[in-house]
Amino acid sequence: MPLLPSDLAYVPFVSVEHMMGLVHHLGIERMLRDLADEIEADFKRWELFDKTPRVASHSDVGVIELMPTSDGEMYGFKYVNGHPKNTKDGLQTVTAFGLLADVDTGYPKLLSEMTLLTALRTAATSAMAARHLAPKGTTTMAMIGNGAQSEFQCLAFKAICGIDTVRLYDIDEAATEKAARNLAASGLKVVTCKSGEDAMEGAQIITTCTADKQYATILTDNMIGPGVHINAIGGDCPGKTELHRDILLRSEIFVEYPEQTWIEGEIQQLEKDHPITELWRVITGEAQGRRDDKQITLFDSVGFAIEDFSALRYIHKAVQGTGYFTKLDMLADPDDPRDLFGMLNRSKG
Amino acid sequence: MPLLPSDLAYVPFVSVEHMMGLVHHLGIERMLRDLADEIEADFKRWELFDKTPRVASHSDVGVIELMPTSDGEMYGFKYVNGHPKNTKDGLQTVTAFGLLADVDTGYPKLLSEMTLLTALRTAATSAMAARHLAPKGTTTMAMIGNGAQSEFQCLAFKAICGIDTVRLYDIDEAATEKAARNLAASGLKVVTCKSGEDAMEGAQIITTCTADKQYATILTDNMIGPGVHINAIGGDCPGKTELHRDILLRSEIFVEYPEQTWIEGEIQQLEKDHPITELWRVITGEAQGRRDDKQITLFDSVGFAIEDFSALRYIHKAVQGTGYFTKLDMLADPDDPRDLFGMLNRSKG
Repeated sequence: MPLLPSDLAYVPFVSVEHMMGLVHHLGIERMLRDLADEIEADFKRWELFDKTPRVASHSDVGVIELMPTSDGEMYGFKYVNGHPKNTKDGLQTVTAFGLLADVDTGYPKLLSEMTLLTALRTAATSAMAARHLAPKGTTTMAMIGNGAQSEFQCLAFKAICGIDTVRLYDIDEAATEKAARNLAASGLKVVTCKSGEDAMEGAQIITTCTADKQYATILTDNMIGPGVHINAIGGDCPGKTELHRDILLRSEIFVEYPEQTWIEGEIQQLEKDHPITELWRVITGEAQGRRDDKQITLFDSVGFAIEDFSALRYIHKAVQGTGYFTKLDMLADPDDPRDLFGMLNRSKG
Repeated sequence: MPLLPSDLAYVPFVSVEHMMGLVHHLGIERMLRDLADEIEADFKRWELFDKTPRVASHSDVGVIELMPTSDGEMYGFKYVNGHPKNTKDGLQTVTAFGLLADVDTGYPKLLSEMTLLTALRTAATSAMAARHLAPKGTTTMAMIGNGAQSEFQCLAFKAICGIDTVRLYDIDEAATEKAARNLAASGLKVVTCKSGEDAMEGAQIITTCTADKQYATILTDNMIGPGVHINAIGGDCPGKTELHRDILLRSEIFVEYPEQTWIEGEIQQLEKDHPITELWRVITGEAQGRRDDKQITLFDSVGFAIEDFSALRYIHKAVQGTGYFTKLDMLADPDDPRDLFGMLNRSKG
């Protein structure tokens, strides 16, 4: 007689449809704020995490990465690919899913889509960093690069930093139009711009998120006035940067996990002894964030496993008691743990 | 209007129930033979795989590991935990799942339970190695340690090496009784034994698979006669071995991936310059396997990512056209890849 698996055998699974439902259920701005708070709380206890650079498998056309971490109670990892050429085939450049497990038993506790969740946590991380680094009273952000991440960034800076205006620019006008359309009902004042310089007019925060997998110079030195905060999230793999080196030399640079940022971030362009500050030290108060109104601050963000961990743990809590997950029969769970074969035999029916 | 995700968004998922159904559908002995052939074929092209030691996260009570590899066309990884204390709480010591993805796009192609599949591939690997290393005309195997892996080992050696008799021993009589019961209808002659020495009587193959996470001496030197093949699969983490060092010194030792076996296998007990042979070199004909009838051969097996990769690829092919999988809505797939936010917005309904 086929037996039903016990509850231990089931792993809650949050599909793309569930994730979209959860976002609408909670409200995207609330969710971005919640995520920023969760990520900030984990940055505060940075030192207790088990950290390792991502485990990457490179090919000619892209990369597949595993990003594991643990706080000693929960273990999480994300699978994520990066394939810039996918777009022309109608596929996503980046897809992702993640898993949360119990360190004490090794049993998975949550499997979740993470393409949407990564977009949300990336935006929440950017805005959380800006909360510590941007000048006071910011109202306007330049959003340079209007691809899949751009609207999430705009909303996160509205929800978390209180901006009211975004100035959009992309070399592809259609991308800008798409972002403007998507943000039309957001409550933000949306200004579409014809150049990067135009977009930066009056902006206290400059976010760059372009997709070319090569050294590009989206921003040059003369474009950047004093006092701004630059949120650079597009330079995220070896050989890919967005800012001219001279901007880096004028900026105070903040990073997530230096071992990874030296390989993938804007600081690839600098000597290895150039001073950088880990963001978590600013959050705990160990290091100074913004010093004065004239300073240029730069968050050179490449993403880190702890941000995914925070996001997965948040989703694990958020879906409890809702219909935004199903249960997957993913773990063999014989009545007698030594009798895996007996379970198989008995399933014959 | 909520839109249905396109077919690109779905990842085939093989649950525990599906895997059990597939095993019965194909027949377990055929499946073990097929797996042995797939694994052997991948060992033949060992050099082209992207290999890395497993990425482990240790805690006081266990370990969670990710085991990735790629052959340049497909990428695979396994999540697996090892928590010896789980058994007393009615949980599995080891649970596992795995994923196969397309290197060219980074898109996942299969998600599968791997607790059962790991038991199958481990047994298939052992018997495949014995096909190259055991003396000719073997009929009898001693199976020492009668836990969750033991019946799979017995059936694999029947299906792949043609043994007709197994001699079972475990310090826990109940485990031996369980294994004997499970193998009653297998076509094997099953002899339950009162000691390890008793079990080895007349056996040409000795398989050890015990579970203690400590240096144990399941086999001592005087128990081992000339000409036998030892299949040691229980020593699989740092500090855990099963064989007395003197046995190693009398044996020709074969391993999967030396970098990993030196850390986790029986050869932890040896000097680092002790000669060992990689099994794949025997399979390609580069290195000699068994030399003569008197030689003691030892397969010091700790498991390797390529075996999981072969098994996942086999399952991916085997489930095509069957009902032994479902489709998971795991990947966000907007019509326009740059319009992830638009997809989210439109799902509001």
